[in-house]
Amino acid sequence: MHDLPRLLAFADTLGDAAGAAILPFFRAAHRVNDKGGVRFDPVTEADQAAERAMRTLIAQEFPDHAILGEEFGETAGASEYRWILDPIDGTRAFMAGLPSWGVLIGLYHEGRPLLGIMDQPYLGERYRGWMGHEPGAIVTVRGATQPLKVRACAGLSEAILSTTDPTLFAGAETEAFARVRDRAKLTRYGYDCYAYAMLAAGHIDCVIESGLNIYDIAALIPIVTGAGGGVCAWDGGDARAGGRVLAWGDGGVRDEVVGMLG
Amino acid sequence: MHDLPRLLAFADTLGDAAGAAILPFFRAAHRVNDKGGVRFDPVTEADQAAERAMRTLIAQEFPDHAILGEEFGETAGASEYRWILDPIDGTRAFMAGLPSWGVLIGLYHEGRPLLGIMDQPYLGERYRGWMGHEPGAIVTVRGATQPLKVRACAGLSEAILSTTDPTLFAGAETEAFARVRDRAKLTRYGYDCYAYAMLAAGHIDCVIESGLNIYDIAALIPIVTGAGGGVCAWDGGDARAGGRVLAWGDGGVRDEVVGMLG
Repeated sequence: MHDLPRLLAFADTLGDAAGAAILPFFRAAHRVNDKGGVRFDPVTEADQAAERAMRTLIAQEFPDHAILGEEFGETAGASEYRWILDPIDGTRAFMAGLPSWGVLIGLYHEGRPLLGIMDQPYLGERYRGWMGHEPGAIVTVRGATQPLKVRACAGLSEAILSTTDPTLFAGAETEAFARVRDRAKLTRYGYDCYAYAMLAAGHIDCVIESGLNIYDIAALIPIVTGAGGGVCAWDGGDARAGGRVLAWGDGGVRDEVVGMLG
Repeated sequence: MHDLPRLLAFADTLGDAAGAAILPFFRAAHRVNDKGGVRFDPVTEADQAAERAMRTLIAQEFPDHAILGEEFGETAGASEYRWILDPIDGTRAFMAGLPSWGVLIGLYHEGRPLLGIMDQPYLGERYRGWMGHEPGAIVTVRGATQPLKVRACAGLSEAILSTTDPTLFAGAETEAFARVRDRAKLTRYGYDCYAYAMLAAGHIDCVIESGLNIYDIAALIPIVTGAGGGVCAWDGGDARAGGRVLAWGDGGVRDEVVGMLG
């Protein structure tokens, strides 16, 4: 039904364009600010340049596809395909010079995730996933490609857990997260989209976040699902629009955590 | 007095040896565990292999130098030189597949920091600093070398702050850190030694930690100092043995934060 190879190759082209637009700005803040004059916001410049580049390519190749981008909002399309773009997920990491941000490129069809890319151009790493009868996921690290596969995990007490910022949870969320964290083997903070990539690669067992937008999660669902894990809401429901999100590598960990958060 | 070029070149040799020992284990946990059988701890294996390699090289080149290593403890030496080694600072990041760990190689002379290296072999980044009449610091990123320079910062309200784990502070430390965090522009978590490297490179303004060992900070003092910043205790005193540590890029931020933590 879908021409998945063509769509994936095109998503690669989008990733290449975004990386080329962003990299000149990474770690350039200091240098540029030293020149004085007009205040310069490198992360916004990079974000906008990358989204502009990707929108131009989509309009040329698939003029009937819809686009939702974090920077420039919604562009309607006649088809049921909708690209969901976050040119720099992890802008605070980007500002601090830390290479845990990523370019997120998702494609939904009839409202459901079809494929996704997380690209980290500074590290030379690209994570790709796709849905369908046989979901799959691969990663290319500096030219070498291999399958992505989540790992088995006997339970939360054996799990490496990650969230971006423990102070971002509100009210009862804080307590719910703390309960899970207290039972987990170890917790890492600060990784934005990179935590989902490490989950798909079998190094992290569980990611818990809240307040996500659709463009924070759209590209990551096929990567995690294709690697054999899954993404759901805290109550076990659907997470494809964002919100309170739980990503898991082992179904047993999902059940245990949904029981504590839901 | 010191043959600084020779010592720096030798520290590079140690960094090369440590990286070669560690990289085969990075992100290998999943693969190895799948084979079943005896439980395997890749981070400990990597840590020990790297420290062994560095100790062998030091014993050959400088048999009278003392060594303190995180893995194998203290080896006395007849001279006033003492190498202080942490083969993998950030073992939890290493376990989670995240490239924010680093190899720390410090050299003290008569109890004072003389030079330091922070090497991140997966990223191909090496940060070097040295003390003396003219402290200096440089970074090599995938073959290209440039000076390290902290940035100016008008005050804590403009500062990017970093700490490894907000739950590691104890008692009154938690409140003291929260006061600083609430006033800072933005806070990042989870970077271990990499946060100090980003401070030296002018992307982060302030790092606050507690409970550090000497080998967590020895190598980083010359890098931060050589880049024009500094490392002190929370009360403004000496931090060369570890403990409660504050690293700063701008002296104004140091004064402001010491006033709140001290």
